[in-house]
Amino acid sequence: MPQKSIQDYYPDDYAICYGCGRLNKDGHQIKSYWDGDETVCRYQPEPFHTGAQNFVYGGLVASLIDCHAAGTAAAALHREEGKELGVEPLSRFVTASLHVDYLAPVRIDQEILMRATIDEIKGRKVVVSIDLISNDTLCAKGKVVAVQIPDARGRGGPLEPHRPARPGPLALVQVVVALLDVRVQVPDELTPAHRRVLAVAAAAGEVARIGEQGRAVRVERLDVV
Amino acid sequence: MPQKSIQDYYPDDYAICYGCGRLNKDGHQIKSYWDGDETVCRYQPEPFHTGAQNFVYGGLVASLIDCHAAGTAAAALHREEGKELGVEPLSRFVTASLHVDYLAPVRIDQEILMRATIDEIKGRKVVVSIDLISNDTLCAKGKVVAVQIPDARGRGGPLEPHRPARPGPLALVQVVVALLDVRVQVPDELTPAHRRVLAVAAAAGEVARIGEQGRAVRVERLDVV
Repeated sequence: MPQKSIQDYYPDDYAICYGCGRLNKDGHQIKSYWDGDETVCRYQPEPFHTGAQNFVYGGLVASLIDCHAAGTAAAALHREEGKELGVEPLSRFVTASLHVDYLAPVRIDQEILMRATIDEIKGRKVVVSIDLISNDTLCAKGKVVAVQIPDARGRGGPLEPHRPARPGPLALVQVVVALLDVRVQVPDELTPAHRRVLAVAAAAGEVARIGEQGRAVRVERLDVV
Repeated sequence: MPQKSIQDYYPDDYAICYGCGRLNKDGHQIKSYWDGDETVCRYQPEPFHTGAQNFVYGGLVASLIDCHAAGTAAAALHREEGKELGVEPLSRFVTASLHVDYLAPVRIDQEILMRATIDEIKGRKVVVSIDLISNDTLCAKGKVVAVQIPDARGRGGPLEPHRPARPGPLALVQVVVALLDVRVQVPDELTPAHRRVLAVAAAAGEVARIGEQGRAVRVERLDVV
């Protein structure tokens, strides 16, 4: 029996992604596998994935890197926590940021190989670097910051994609602390220092929007992208 | 008669991109337009562009930002050089680097609006920032470094996508000088200082690979992605 990929362990409601969902018949359905401490993914572009003649468009490169990184992040934290694929449900990650350096054109008639290394696991944040190789050439380098969706929704339970939580200041601080390993006290009204911390968290994709209603802080948590 | 988009002015052989090519019937065919000093692009996701339920996958966000930025870069340099769209051929840009910060999920049932600003035009390099808005929410911020393909191939002439030039050290220095506005003398054998300059150029996507054969420097120029 062929080895199951990381994406094959996603719960069904997370398996509809155009890039990596096994249930999305229109999508790329990429498959990532452990290879020692790295993960690998191979993908054959379609003839219509052109950028210029003979080469794939840059958006495909970004998409493949993004989804391979998200799967790698999920598997990496799973392994870090001592869990085995298929035994405990695989948690879900969203992309906070994606960076791609395009180094050389990617031929459309060649299979693409991606190799991912895990740079950092810190709380719910996993940083993944990816080399994308085609025709024996390093064609792109990617770096992805991925963040695990919090436990209540992220560990195999049903997906509720549009019910943002609105925690008060204390819950917000817990989020920030978990993400950044910083310790802050938050008063009812935020100081500029707190705003800076929150801005960092927002930039990391952890907090989608920060607003205020009167003196109360309103936070809409990041949902599944 | 409706206004023609920037992408409508691409030469035919550059109009096959999955993201923005008007001749790619399978692709997104995005359309970008000037709006004062900015450019705008609207795109309606397809139902199968899911990431999680109700939301688009992150790779689509990256793809849209990439192609809107490339079109904006081409139009911006065209305007900077005092040229009008449709009068002189639009030159072509490739992406050197792409950065996306994902701030909020993008609903699949809403039209996406992108708004691009031109941060910098420096020689053949154009830096573009993009706000991606959906459902009245800033959902992603992108930054793209795009580089114009050199004149000989980039100004309407036939596209020759896989014939990398192999200039000697002097030609290489000219490339680096054009990109970075630095002045260097290159001996037959590169010093560590020269290597650092070349590494910067490589990171900017200008030089795909740098190798050595004996004491001669071999450079493969960036081709169309």
